[in-house]
Amino acid sequence: MAAHQETIYRQAGFGNAVPRGSRPGVLVVDFSYGFTDTSYPTAAEMSEPIARTRQITELARDRGHPVVYTTIAYQPAELTTLPWLKKAAGMAALLEGSRLVQIDAATGIRPTDALITKKGASAFFGTSLAALLTSAGVDTLIITGATTSGCVRASAVDAVQSGFTVLVPADCCADRADAPHRANLYDIDQKYGDVTTAADIIDWIERLPR
Amino acid sequence: MAAHQETIYRQAGFGNAVPRGSRPGVLVVDFSYGFTDTSYPTAAEMSEPIARTRQITELARDRGHPVVYTTIAYQPAELTTLPWLKKAAGMAALLEGSRLVQIDAATGIRPTDALITKKGASAFFGTSLAALLTSAGVDTLIITGATTSGCVRASAVDAVQSGFTVLVPADCCADRADAPHRANLYDIDQKYGDVTTAADIIDWIERLPR
Amino acid sequence: MAAHQETIYRQAGFGNAVPRGSRPGVLVVDFSYGFTDTSYPTAAEMSEPIARTRQITELARDRGHPVVYTTIAYQPAELTTLPWLKKAAGMAALLEGSRLVQIDAATGIRPTDALITKKGASAFFGTSLAALLTSAGVDTLIITGATTSGCVRASAVDAVQSGFTVLVPADCCADRADAPHRANLYDIDQKYGDVTTAADIIDWIERLPR
Amino acid sequence: MAAHQETIYRQAGFGNAVPRGSRPGVLVVDFSYGFTDTSYPTAAEMSEPIARTRQITELARDRGHPVVYTTIAYQPAELTTLPWLKKAAGMAALLEGSRLVQIDAATGIRPTDALITKKGASAFFGTSLAALLTSAGVDTLIITGATTSGCVRASAVDAVQSGFTVLVPADCCADRADAPHRANLYDIDQKYGDVTTAADIIDWIERLPR
Repeated sequence: MAAHQETIYRQAGFGNAVPRGSRPGVLVVDFSYGFTDTSYPTAAEMSEPIARTRQITELARDRGHPVVYTTIAYQPAELTTLPWLKKAAGMAALLEGSRLVQIDAATGIRPTDALITKKGASAFFGTSLAALLTSAGVDTLIITGATTSGCVRASAVDAVQSGFTVLVPADCCADRADAPHRANLYDIDQKYGDVTTAADIIDWIERLPR
Repeated sequence: MAAHQETIYRQAGFGNAVPRGSRPGVLVVDFSYGFTDTSYPTAAEMSEPIARTRQITELARDRGHPVVYTTIAYQPAELTTLPWLKKAAGMAALLEGSRLVQIDAATGIRPTDALITKKGASAFFGTSLAALLTSAGVDTLIITGATTSGCVRASAVDAVQSGFTVLVPADCCADRADAPHRANLYDIDQKYGDVTTAADIIDWIERLPR
Repeated sequence: MAAHQETIYRQAGFGNAVPRGSRPGVLVVDFSYGFTDTSYPTAAEMSEPIARTRQITELARDRGHPVVYTTIAYQPAELTTLPWLKKAAGMAALLEGSRLVQIDAATGIRPTDALITKKGASAFFGTSLAALLTSAGVDTLIITGATTSGCVRASAVDAVQSGFTVLVPADCCADRADAPHRANLYDIDQKYGDVTTAADIIDWIERLPR
Repeated sequence: MAAHQETIYRQAGFGNAVPRGSRPGVLVVDFSYGFTDTSYPTAAEMSEPIARTRQITELARDRGHPVVYTTIAYQPAELTTLPWLKKAAGMAALLEGSRLVQIDAATGIRPTDALITKKGASAFFGTSLAALLTSAGVDTLIITGATTSGCVRASAVDAVQSGFTVLVPADCCADRADAPHRANLYDIDQKYGDVTTAADIIDWIERLPR
C-alpha cells in the first residue's frame, strides 16, 4: 500500500482493530469439491488453508462453539433465471446432488455441524445463517474458506452488517489468484473485520473462559 | 492482470458479458456530503463521477425509469453497538440530520427520487431497496457512486444476488485511492456485473423501446 | 364480521382489490408429508386443496410460469438452538432426509420445479425465494398450501412486502382447524392480498396473453 | 377455542411456554400518531396499551436494555409502486415528515432510543432491526404496539424466525377491532411467542441479574 493511501485510510477512520466478544462461531465458506478439487475448472489448490481451518474447527467444536459450513448448490429451475449464473457461468456446474457441492472430507465436517446451502457469494444472503448464529448467541464470527475475493469477502461484509464482529485468518483463506486474494484481504482488514492468522485465532479461543 | 490469472478466470467461467433487460433502474450510492465534500476526512474528490452520473439519472428519469439514491446515516443508539462502526470508526460521523448525510446537490437529486438510508456498505442490506425495485419492475440495475471498493462493490454483489442484472459504469464511480478502485472494478467485472462507461449506459437507455 | 368492524376497516383503507400483473408465479407452501399425511401429528386432511392447487400448477407450468414448492426441514444443529422449535416443538420432527419433509407426490411436483427449504413460517425468510421470483420476472404471486394460519399467512405478508402482488385462492389452502383458517383469510384479504378461488385464478391465467 | 382444536394443537406440538433468555430488548410497534390519534381514519383508541408499554420501556431503559420504536413512513416514489399500498391504501397517508409518522409523545420515547422506519407490516422486513438487536446482544424480544393483527403479528413472526425468543404482553397491544386482536394473539401464543401481561414482563425484568 502506498504511503499516501495509508494516510488517507487512517484519516478516514478505517483499519481499527475490533474488540472481540466472548462467544465465537466459525464459518467455513465453500470448501466443497467444486472449489477444492483441482480436477474441476472452478477449483484451486487449497489443502493448506483447509488443514489450518480444521485446527480451528476442531478446537471450536471441542469448546462447544458452533461450526457452520457453506456450499453453493443449484436446482435446474435456477440455472436459466439467476443473473449471477450468466456472469459467473462456471458456477452453474454446482448442481444439487453432485460431488461438486459436497463439503471436502479433508475439512473434518461432522453430521452435527450446520451446512448452509447458498445461491450467491454471501453465506448470509438468502439463507438462515444470521438467525442460526443469533439463536446460538454468537457475537464474533471467524470466517475462513474460499474464495477470498468472492464468497469470503461477501460473507465478511454481510457478517459485520448483521451485527457480528468479524475475524478472518488469512492463512485459512484460499483463492484462484494472488492479486485478488491480497486486494480483498486489504479491503476486509480496513473496513469489515480483523485479518489475522490461524495461530492467533486458536490462541484466542483457548484463552476464552469455558 | 497476469496472463495466468486471465486464463484461470476464463476457465472457471467468469467474466461473461451479461444480457441486459428492458427495464433499468439507477442506483446512486452514497454521493452524500460526507463522501463528496473533501472538507470531511471520510470524503474524496468525486466531481467528475457525480457529473457523469447526473447525465445518466436525468436521462433515466426522463424515460420514466426509477432513480434511487442512498446515504449512510446513524442514530445515537447505533453508535455504541454496531460492530461496523468499531472497524470503520470514521463512519460514525454520519449522523442523522447532519449535513454529512445529505445527498450532494450536484447530483441533481429530486424530491420524487427514492432515498434509501442504510447502516452498512450494501444498499440492499437491511433496507427496502430490493422490494422497491421489484415493485417497479426493474430487471437491470445501473450502479454508480462511492466508494467503488466499499459500498458500490457491496451493492453490486447484493444486486446480482437479489436477481437483478448489474451494470457498473466505471467513470461514474469514485474512491479514495486508485488501487482498491481498480481491484474492485476487476472483481465486479469478473463476477457480479458488467463494468462499462457512462457513454455506453446512455446509449443503451436511449435505444430502449419507450 | 361485525358491521362496525367492516366500517372501521373500510374507513382505514383496507380490503381493496389489487390490480393483477402480467407474469404470475405459483408458490405452494408446505404440502409435504409432515403436513399432508394424517398419520403424523403435525398433519391434517388436505387432499382437496392439494388437488385444486394441482390444477393451477399444471396450467401455470404449461404456460411457462414458475411453480415453486416449499418444505420445512431441519438439521440436527438447528434443533437445540432455534427458538421457533421451542414454541412449536412439533416442527422439530421435520428432519432433513426424512419422509416428512418430502413434497407430497399428489401435488404433481416435477424435478424442474424449484423447491425452497425453509426454517420458519415464511417462504421468503432466510431463503432465496424473492431473488428467484425477481430473476424470473414474476410480478404477481399466487399462494396456496398449508397451513393458512401459519406459513401461508406469513408468506403472504412477506410476498407483498417483497414487492409482489398477492393472490390467495382460499380453496387451495388447508389448516388444522377452521377458526384460525377463516381468521387468517380475513386478515390476508383485508391487508395483504386478494383472497379468491382456484376457478378465478385458472380463468385469469388462461386469459393472460401468451 | 373449541376442545377439539385445543387437542389438535397440543398434539401438533404447539403452544409451549418458551424459555426466557437473560438480555431483553423492547420493540414498540407503530405507536405513531397515524395509529394512535383517532382523528386519523387509520388510528384507534390505544391510550391504555401505550401507558402500560411505557412502564415496560422505562424499566428496560433504566436497566440498560435497548428500547426500539417503529414507524411506517413513505416517500413519494414509493406510493405508486409498492403493492401493499394498493391493498392497504389507507397506509399511503403515512408520509415522511408528516405528523402521522411521528411517535406519540405519550410513549415517552427519548432521543437515545432507536427508531426504525419501515415500509410494511414487519419491523424486521427491509430494516436494520435484526442487526441492531444482535449487535446489542439481545436474546429475548418483548413486542408491544399496534396493531395486534397487523404489524405486531408480523413482527412476532419475524422475531422468532430471526432467532429471538418472543414475548408479547397482550395488554400492551392495540387493534382496531376485537376479533382480529384475539385471533392473532391466539396464533402468536400457539406458534411464535408467549402471550403474557405487562405485569409479568415487569416482574421478569426486575428479577434479571443486573
